[in-house]
Amino acid sequence: MDDCIFCKIIKGEIPSYKVYEDEVVYAFLDISQTTPGHTLVVPKKHVKDIFEYDADLAAAVFARIPKIARAIKASDPAIEGMNILNNNGEVAYQSVFHSHFHLIPRYQDDDFRIQFVNKQEQYDDAKYQAVLDKITKQL
Amino acid sequence: MDDCIFCKIIKGEIPSYKVYEDEVVYAFLDISQTTPGHTLVVPKKHVKDIFEYDADLAAAVFARIPKIARAIKASDPAIEGMNILNNNGEVAYQSVFHSHFHLIPRYQDDDFRIQFVNKQEQYDDAKYQAVLDKITKQL
Repeated sequence: MDDCIFCKIIKGEIPSYKVYEDEVVYAFLDISQTTPGHTLVVPKKHVKDIFEYDADLAAAVFARIPKIARAIKASDPAIEGMNILNNNGEVAYQSVFHSHFHLIPRYQDDDFRIQFVNKQEQYDDAKYQAVLDKITKQL
Repeated sequence: MDDCIFCKIIKGEIPSYKVYEDEVVYAFLDISQTTPGHTLVVPKKHVKDIFEYDADLAAAVFARIPKIARAIKASDPAIEGMNILNNNGEVAYQSVFHSHFHLIPRYQDDDFRIQFVNKQEQYDDAKYQAVLDKITKQL
């Protein structure tokens, strides 16, 4: 898309620190390094979010992720783990509307936090079942 | 694996609220509903984390994710977005060591938060390049 910053990065019209590229994906350092090595993996095909992927594109993109994840982990012995995060919709912190996967390497005492600050409302069986039924009706 | 809670759920030895199942994945409601509809997608094959996946398994698992994500989104008009999250390693909040993907539907004013609380240290070109070189050397 003409006005998409990630499409421009993929085409080389905007510079990036390129981690990996092949016919399906382009991976580059997030300009905002949440932790050192924070990398974005982006499909070359412009899709907005996870809801727009077909099975083949999702498979092709994710086939590349373990290799890139292993390379990031191997790049620094201080890396002990990784969060892989894909945000869909403004409410979920998506800011660039070209689907992307954050690979965020984790270090002891780093500054990234995911807070499950839900009130941990107790569900009874009927409540789980009601949620479940709404979803399975769509499958 | 004999002592793996997710292997037991997949085999039906522990009950679950099953969202979807086929030959590759098993999807079920997270017993801790971070938000209503919070679903885990798990490969039937026991792999510990993203670093253990080969390309074929990653592709097969992720091929299923858009369909499940769309079904969750369609299940409730109040769902405006979704975080897809895969935690690898204790430092990254992994608590069950059978790889899994959290599909967390997002609602206005829900209780889930991801905090990029990093100090946003300013990187200069040399620092980006040093991080990049360490990763690309592994690819």
